[in-house]
Amino acid sequence: MTVGILGGGQLGRMLALAAAELGLNCHIYCPEAGSPAFAVAAAHTAAAYDDEAALAAFAAAVDVVTLEFENIPLETLRFLSERVAVAPGVKSLAVAQDRLSEKELMGELGIAVPAYAEVSSRQDIYSALAKTGRPAILKTRRLGYDGKGQAVIRPGDDLATVWRTIGEAPAILEAFVAFEREISIVLARATDGTLRAYDICENRHVNGILATTTVPANATPELAARAVGIAERIAIALGHVGVLAVEMFVLPGEVILVNEIAPRVHNSGHWTTDGCLTSQFEQHIRAIAGWSLGDAERHSDVTMENLIGADAGRWAEILAEPGARLHLYGKAEARPGRKMGHVNRVRPAEKL
Amino acid sequence: MTVGILGGGQLGRMLALAAAELGLNCHIYCPEAGSPAFAVAAAHTAAAYDDEAALAAFAAAVDVVTLEFENIPLETLRFLSERVAVAPGVKSLAVAQDRLSEKELMGELGIAVPAYAEVSSRQDIYSALAKTGRPAILKTRRLGYDGKGQAVIRPGDDLATVWRTIGEAPAILEAFVAFEREISIVLARATDGTLRAYDICENRHVNGILATTTVPANATPELAARAVGIAERIAIALGHVGVLAVEMFVLPGEVILVNEIAPRVHNSGHWTTDGCLTSQFEQHIRAIAGWSLGDAERHSDVTMENLIGADAGRWAEILAEPGARLHLYGKAEARPGRKMGHVNRVRPAEKL
Repeated sequence: MTVGILGGGQLGRMLALAAAELGLNCHIYCPEAGSPAFAVAAAHTAAAYDDEAALAAFAAAVDVVTLEFENIPLETLRFLSERVAVAPGVKSLAVAQDRLSEKELMGELGIAVPAYAEVSSRQDIYSALAKTGRPAILKTRRLGYDGKGQAVIRPGDDLATVWRTIGEAPAILEAFVAFEREISIVLARATDGTLRAYDICENRHVNGILATTTVPANATPELAARAVGIAERIAIALGHVGVLAVEMFVLPGEVILVNEIAPRVHNSGHWTTDGCLTSQFEQHIRAIAGWSLGDAERHSDVTMENLIGADAGRWAEILAEPGARLHLYGKAEARPGRKMGHVNRVRPAEKL
Repeated sequence: MTVGILGGGQLGRMLALAAAELGLNCHIYCPEAGSPAFAVAAAHTAAAYDDEAALAAFAAAVDVVTLEFENIPLETLRFLSERVAVAPGVKSLAVAQDRLSEKELMGELGIAVPAYAEVSSRQDIYSALAKTGRPAILKTRRLGYDGKGQAVIRPGDDLATVWRTIGEAPAILEAFVAFEREISIVLARATDGTLRAYDICENRHVNGILATTTVPANATPELAARAVGIAERIAIALGHVGVLAVEMFVLPGEVILVNEIAPRVHNSGHWTTDGCLTSQFEQHIRAIAGWSLGDAERHSDVTMENLIGADAGRWAEILAEPGARLHLYGKAEARPGRKMGHVNRVRPAEKL
């Protein structure tokens, strides 16, 4: 079986490595020449997402198509879906690509989110602020990641400037949430509907980019069960197949608000490679291949630290650290803000 | 950094996957087109081991060369050594390629081996049998693996037939050892001489091919320490860099005899991928890259089962088994006796 992967970054690379461990070949499709995943796959296509000839050839060469990130054009996914099995499907992507659709789905499912309002023009910001108060965060509906496409509106800020900052793109305004902590649930859903969630994890962001993920999280079993329940309802509503991550805020009084969803393997699931028998990458491959899911139980305590930009220069030091497991993505250039790798610091699981 | 790997079978494939996790690129060199490791490496060369033009280009394209098996011609290794760093070195291979050299080194190191005698002609078998008694095993000095190149001599057997069975090649005759169990030590030696051994493991062979490896082994700490000491002395004597495996027999009275050595990652170390933070594959890459070695402590109990020939057809069943981790090698055809994959059955480590 050959697995086609849309996107050739570190997530595509780690998916390809997991597929290889299961004896599968991978074919990576990504517009950027020299993408990190190309180096570990049997085949790759460097072509645009709207290159129909290249897409048709790709579809013919693989048995199933999956993706490493949600911002693949829906048209690309629809084109491929007519020719080959694709998982996750269009619905998962359509919702996750658009912050407004995402919030609306949460509304339909009765899942709490921060107060928000749609912003389609500069004028909309005024009425939106009436709903959210200040500070609030203006976020483009589409193509935001790692804190990009976002601007905070504080008392006194010039709205015209803020509107220009986000490129005057369709947006939503979100109330600033005074959360106590950030958590996420990473789960997988198989083609037969089986759900398997990893342990709840606690995340810390710096400058809008995930800095660390820790398991076990600071969370009661009751909170963890509620968080898993929320993520499961979302996965079911999307008819999702594969790994899905749901980032959440925990407010005082153990109130959970969903921040955002990612219909794919997720940075906050990187700890699973060294903390569980089945990593999120293997789990995703099993799900999209139509196989049974693996054991998602956690055998160790882990803190995952992202190595961003120059952090990767610490690799030799990390290699010498007991209990540390280094993962590098094979990126040639360590630009500021660029995810170069991560390290999982593993400790024996504390028994309760 | 680009790692060159001689040999493109499952060991080369798993080495390449481990290198990729560390951000390294791999270039596989192997005579067979379509070798399993080609599918997970950035580059490959399908050329003969005596193709000097191909070898020179390979040497120029990589930063360090290693190997997945010991039967690489020494001339190939010497040719490459003049052009690029190579680990392990010629001495490790020269000894491991020749059962007689191997036995002689053990003799020099005062390490016990089964009684043996050199056999260069059919006539030699008579005098050799006087040393070993019957049954005994006639083994070609070179190119034997997985029970190939071996013939048992029992009372009454026709020696001419046996001699033909092994191709009339230079051989040694080894006394049949009534061992209680088979164990092995897999260790790594870094360029600075640091040694790190994995837990002693217990092996079971069927038809000359490894069937299962179990950790923890049925061994006292005293036996384990002696076995590790033997393997360490061998690694030091060879000036070995990389992973080295030493297979041993345990006789009644806890007597250890060395059976054979493998100057490379070894089938009896496959359990480390799911039982330790640092797998033997990562450890080997760290060693040959000149890096510090990783944590070799065992966090779980594991039984590794090889999937040979049609065994691989059980993959779906194994995927559904709790605690089982499947590894397949991406080989197209499941021929009898061919290693297609393995499964690690993982249990929480029993505390002593």
